[in-house]
Amino acid sequence: MNIQDIIEIKRDGHKLSKEQIEYFVNNYTNGNITDYQAAALVMAIYMNGMDEEEITNLTLAMANSGDILDLSELGIVVDKHSTGGIGDKVTLILAPIIASLGIPVAKMSGRGLGYTGGTADKLEAIPGYNVVLDEKQFIENVKEIGISLITQTANLAPADKKIYALRDSINCVESIPLIASSIMSKKIASGANKIVLDVTCGSGAFMKTKENAKKLAETMEKMGKLAERETVAVITNMDQPLGKYVGNTLEVIEAIEALNGHWQEDVKEVVLLLGANMIKLAGKGDDLEENKVKMLEQIENGEALSKFKELVVKQGGDASYIEDLEKFPKAKYKLPVIATKSGIVNKLNAEEVGKIAMKLGAGRLRKEDEIIKEVGIELNKKVGNNVEIGDILAYIHGNNEELTEKAVIDLRNVYEIE
Amino acid sequence: MNIQDIIEIKRDGHKLSKEQIEYFVNNYTNGNITDYQAAALVMAIYMNGMDEEEITNLTLAMANSGDILDLSELGIVVDKHSTGGIGDKVTLILAPIIASLGIPVAKMSGRGLGYTGGTADKLEAIPGYNVVLDEKQFIENVKEIGISLITQTANLAPADKKIYALRDSINCVESIPLIASSIMSKKIASGANKIVLDVTCGSGAFMKTKENAKKLAETMEKMGKLAERETVAVITNMDQPLGKYVGNTLEVIEAIEALNGHWQEDVKEVVLLLGANMIKLAGKGDDLEENKVKMLEQIENGEALSKFKELVVKQGGDASYIEDLEKFPKAKYKLPVIATKSGIVNKLNAEEVGKIAMKLGAGRLRKEDEIIKEVGIELNKKVGNNVEIGDILAYIHGNNEELTEKAVIDLRNVYEIE
Repeated sequence: MNIQDIIEIKRDGHKLSKEQIEYFVNNYTNGNITDYQAAALVMAIYMNGMDEEEITNLTLAMANSGDILDLSELGIVVDKHSTGGIGDKVTLILAPIIASLGIPVAKMSGRGLGYTGGTADKLEAIPGYNVVLDEKQFIENVKEIGISLITQTANLAPADKKIYALRDSINCVESIPLIASSIMSKKIASGANKIVLDVTCGSGAFMKTKENAKKLAETMEKMGKLAERETVAVITNMDQPLGKYVGNTLEVIEAIEALNGHWQEDVKEVVLLLGANMIKLAGKGDDLEENKVKMLEQIENGEALSKFKELVVKQGGDASYIEDLEKFPKAKYKLPVIATKSGIVNKLNAEEVGKIAMKLGAGRLRKEDEIIKEVGIELNKKVGNNVEIGDILAYIHGNNEELTEKAVIDLRNVYEIE
Repeated sequence: MNIQDIIEIKRDGHKLSKEQIEYFVNNYTNGNITDYQAAALVMAIYMNGMDEEEITNLTLAMANSGDILDLSELGIVVDKHSTGGIGDKVTLILAPIIASLGIPVAKMSGRGLGYTGGTADKLEAIPGYNVVLDEKQFIENVKEIGISLITQTANLAPADKKIYALRDSINCVESIPLIASSIMSKKIASGANKIVLDVTCGSGAFMKTKENAKKLAETMEKMGKLAERETVAVITNMDQPLGKYVGNTLEVIEAIEALNGHWQEDVKEVVLLLGANMIKLAGKGDDLEENKVKMLEQIENGEALSKFKELVVKQGGDASYIEDLEKFPKAKYKLPVIATKSGIVNKLNAEEVGKIAMKLGAGRLRKEDEIIKEVGIELNKKVGNNVEIGDILAYIHGNNEELTEKAVIDLRNVYEIE
């Protein structure tokens, strides 16, 4: 068996065997297959697809490429994962709520692929917060305080780590086999018994259409079943950015505000939907609506916020920032985006907003790029809002004057007002 | 502009602009685009193709990625190129014949891609022969003795060099846009005014079908016209290996025998067809049949052989090997392949023969592999020959006993006798 033959099979639209997929994953992980050979195969997979058996084999091979975490001592652990979007700070709010209900949260999150930082990048916007714990410490923390949020450890699905980075550089992110196997391999390797998936759908998501989102959701539910991890996938809208802020520090601030009970309706809806399913999978309540009420109580009684603070302190973060949001570093410039037209906001393309945020420095173009935590976008007006000429549609938070001014113009053009 | 966008365009089946193609070629050459990004784009080009305008733009961008050789001081220079095959020693015979007719031959040849060595590898089987001359020395030699055969210099179409090596590693060799642009960019950069192309067709060629061979031939003739280099492409058969020997030293020996007038009919036919067209393009005779007669005269009067010796000496080679073929190093083992069946040889798949030669060490699996010059295959029986049980079909020349014995069995299975 050699990689050229495997490339040829997929290039010509045929099916790869379990052995061929394992050969690729193992030899790419250990460096016998080069990045450029993997890139060619990944492109062929992107273009010719994979059937369910191939996706399952790819998922399991990637999961088995490193350690499989054993979380059994924690009891039932429900993991949550989103296929991503713009302004998605859901984990930061959802995880402490769930943990405060006594359901263990042991979650590993990625860094940013695409337009904005990932959850791990956002957590790092809290001074001192350490996202890099070893597995022992990670489990220890969950045992002690019921929650830990870290980034992927080095030896967890290392094949996925390499393929994931590669896909971004060669524009092969938006592929159902590649997305499904990437997510599910990490979920399987990171040891949760139950998994709730947020499949985002719309202009700011990898899945642009309901049809594709449904296909991805179904694919991943099947993978979960095959791997004996009960999996529920819900589809949520990502046509416009989620919530008020886009950007790392800004999204942390929005999450803390939500934990204080001041939250945006769209964020609230997604958090409650996912959380209600997590509670159900954990065996703590079959009625989704009742579960939502329980979650809201944890906000009202302050326990979700306390849990978040506990998490931050436990992972080395400075909790004084949580208590005084003014302490967070601010971008050098904050320029308003003024409406030049009256009417109703008809559209606010999430992907376009994400691109503007990325250009400000909130995301990475290359994997070696550094994220600027404090820059981003503050959205005052969203789809359905009334706008008068002269109203402030949004603010751009930027560190470079020229880029900030350019973002003002760009963002005004993204607002479709009728 | 960035490489991700360019990859996306071709990945999704759209057309690349001149600017996008130039951006890719220039930035890949200077290292701003990585091998894995280039691999992804090359795979997308392989799978979605390119139209004539794209191929022309790719060809010119690759030609312009390095120096364009100026051979104008040599007058009309006719270059020759083959799309490759098994046992193809045509250049070694053709070039001295043409040079002996007073038509300057300034030819750069590649190293082996695929099953056997390239012309540059074969020339190196002559002890002392130096295939690496700088451009000045190259032109000087042609001025002095009318011929020089070297390998591609470092700054000639460097983009093609990188893409060519990449294609081999990712199994994207057999693609008309990629083959046409690779060949024509080198031909344009290496400065010939006129070009004769040998498009091989059959089981041992990149083009397996007449239809594809015709398409490639037409594509390259059009490229030549657009670049103002008159180009004639002829299609020749490569269903079975060309001539009697496959392997580097062995093919040099066969070429010298041909220059002595002892040649295989199939080799003779290809050499005469290509040469007659070269003489015509050089303006030294419009009648192809008359041109062939002129070529045969150069064999008979010994001038072609003298020219070959002159070439070898000029490039540092030891001409005593040309005079005494017994001096060439021999492989350690020479085992016969005995017929176990009587009948007529019906088929002798060139690609399969090439694979056996490669396994013996005559070709490269990876670009860093070293070729073993003296190993290879000697074909006593070819398609159409009568065979009795016990006849020697072929000899395997190998340096490793086990590999040689395995090659005997493999080659017997390639012979189809009915």
